[in-house]
Amino acid sequence: MTQQPRPAPPSAAIARRARERVAALAKPTGALGRLEDLAVWWAACSGACPAAPPANVRAVVLAGDHGVTAGGSGVSAYPREVTAAMVGAFVAGVAGVSVLARQHDVSVRVLDLAVDADLTELPIEVGAYKIRRSSGAIDREDALTPAETERALAAGAAIATEEIAAGADLLIVGDMGIGNTTPAASLIAATFGLPAAEVTGRGTGIDDEALIAKTALIQRALGRAGARVADPITRLAALGSADIAAGVGFLVAAARAGVPVLLDGVVSLAEAAVAEDLAPGCVVWWAAGHRSFDPAQPLATEKLGLVPLLDLGLRLGEGSGAVAAVPLVRSAASLLADMALLVDLA
Amino acid sequence: MTQQPRPAPPSAAIARRARERVAALAKPTGALGRLEDLAVWWAACSGACPAAPPANVRAVVLAGDHGVTAGGSGVSAYPREVTAAMVGAFVAGVAGVSVLARQHDVSVRVLDLAVDADLTELPIEVGAYKIRRSSGAIDREDALTPAETERALAAGAAIATEEIAAGADLLIVGDMGIGNTTPAASLIAATFGLPAAEVTGRGTGIDDEALIAKTALIQRALGRAGARVADPITRLAALGSADIAAGVGFLVAAARAGVPVLLDGVVSLAEAAVAEDLAPGCVVWWAAGHRSFDPAQPLATEKLGLVPLLDLGLRLGEGSGAVAAVPLVRSAASLLADMALLVDLA
Repeated sequence: MTQQPRPAPPSAAIARRARERVAALAKPTGALGRLEDLAVWWAACSGACPAAPPANVRAVVLAGDHGVTAGGSGVSAYPREVTAAMVGAFVAGVAGVSVLARQHDVSVRVLDLAVDADLTELPIEVGAYKIRRSSGAIDREDALTPAETERALAAGAAIATEEIAAGADLLIVGDMGIGNTTPAASLIAATFGLPAAEVTGRGTGIDDEALIAKTALIQRALGRAGARVADPITRLAALGSADIAAGVGFLVAAARAGVPVLLDGVVSLAEAAVAEDLAPGCVVWWAAGHRSFDPAQPLATEKLGLVPLLDLGLRLGEGSGAVAAVPLVRSAASLLADMALLVDLA
Repeated sequence: MTQQPRPAPPSAAIARRARERVAALAKPTGALGRLEDLAVWWAACSGACPAAPPANVRAVVLAGDHGVTAGGSGVSAYPREVTAAMVGAFVAGVAGVSVLARQHDVSVRVLDLAVDADLTELPIEVGAYKIRRSSGAIDREDALTPAETERALAAGAAIATEEIAAGADLLIVGDMGIGNTTPAASLIAATFGLPAAEVTGRGTGIDDEALIAKTALIQRALGRAGARVADPITRLAALGSADIAAGVGFLVAAARAGVPVLLDGVVSLAEAAVAEDLAPGCVVWWAAGHRSFDPAQPLATEKLGLVPLLDLGLRLGEGSGAVAAVPLVRSAASLLADMALLVDLA
């Protein structure tokens, strides 16, 4: 099985000091709830206790189309042309995640990995890492060739390296692509050995009939891919897509560089599930921003030992659930740094 | 039964326009989840569609001690001296809610309604609305006299009026007081006809033995108060406290002035439950910020038809769960105002 080196973990010594400081704050034991563990995680990832709250949060949105939406397969409520239109909306700063990111001072960069259009009217850097137009229809063919898979992984790693070079102290990987919950759910099923019926969700809002068709398609894809999916890179090639493979490369590179990531929805969790298989130990660099409606996402967060911070019923994709959780990471860090200690009150 | 005039409701016409705009945004139907209803609520309360996000959010923390903590009753894990010490922490800006409020640009003002100490070392305005030192031990005596109850209600209304005059577009009422979850749970039980065993929680973190003693105390208080609690003002006098009665006056005055409120934990919900009884129709001006660990709070939110936005396991009081939810109200407003419309993408 292909594996990459384990990333070094966050500082255990700092985590210990952060736990001691949490216990010394002027509040009842445990009164900050989930923000206590989040504060410890952030301190350990930052290598300081107390640590400054995240000041340079950078989100990338990896866009791509998916062969499974061709020919009226019905796995999405929307036509694939929406993907290209939405890439334009990110560039214009009017997508949902653009609005949330402005509110929370998060940068957003959209990249076309596999949109089924030539986005020549958009800034050239949007297409700098384009792998192909759409990925393969995973129920009938592999999503990517082995060479494309390696290129997509390398593209994601390069994108992470660029964001880290720009000063990122917290990263987010978002997604845009009509049909992308189908490869995402397939990858989560293949990673954790789950049946299609458990992982298939309504994505952008398909009806019962389409849900049955999507479940059958995922089951066919899993059957077609077979035992090859034991290897995480072959799994990406068989069941993933260029944008999702890039997300995997992004997550592994971020963990190996020691930069924490807030995960988002089902696509983000599919990337995380494969990344943890490819380079075990990445997961300790991650927190989960938002619980998805699509069942594969909470299944994957549970398997990875993560508990999403928010549960607002968002199903927008784009990294929006992770961006919405950024203020909670900042709150956790600020509470650990700035609250009175019990000894100060006495 | 004592009742005050119904507040005028938020604009139904604006709510309708906001719902139409939500449906016209460039996103799948329902993809903003809970933020869709929140955006409609905020627009209707603001009287504009789209409305600017809340810019002047003002929290007050109403502090008081409670007779039920006297004599080692065991209903709290902390001694009552902590209340006065924490009022000092609010003034110094080092309480938990102070930290969250700075992050979210929320003003915090602490007021001593019934702290069992003369806080002469603190700024004089902290005590401007002081009703008494501690409130009565509700298992043995009424918390307040009728005259004190009226003065506390009027104090809360005056505090709300001051915050609104200072430009508040969104208000928060927080609490500080060792023992305050005991009158709060009692008021929720009396308002909704629930038994003591269903409403009693661990507050700041009491053990099993103390939980049994607290349940018995609440049961005794409910029995002692008897049928008088059908009247909301008598209920406050019998089972409440000066700080909680002030919170009721605050909530009614805010609704009658047409200013929305983000509710917080169990004390805030006790105030809301009584306020809605006293002036029916207030509830449409409220949203719930955070789901409490103490069982009386989710019971009360459900009875009032509210669904808390966050569930982070916070049990700090102080208005902290409401302040933590402020960015979500801002997100909802900004998404409604600034996202692309579907017609723009086509």
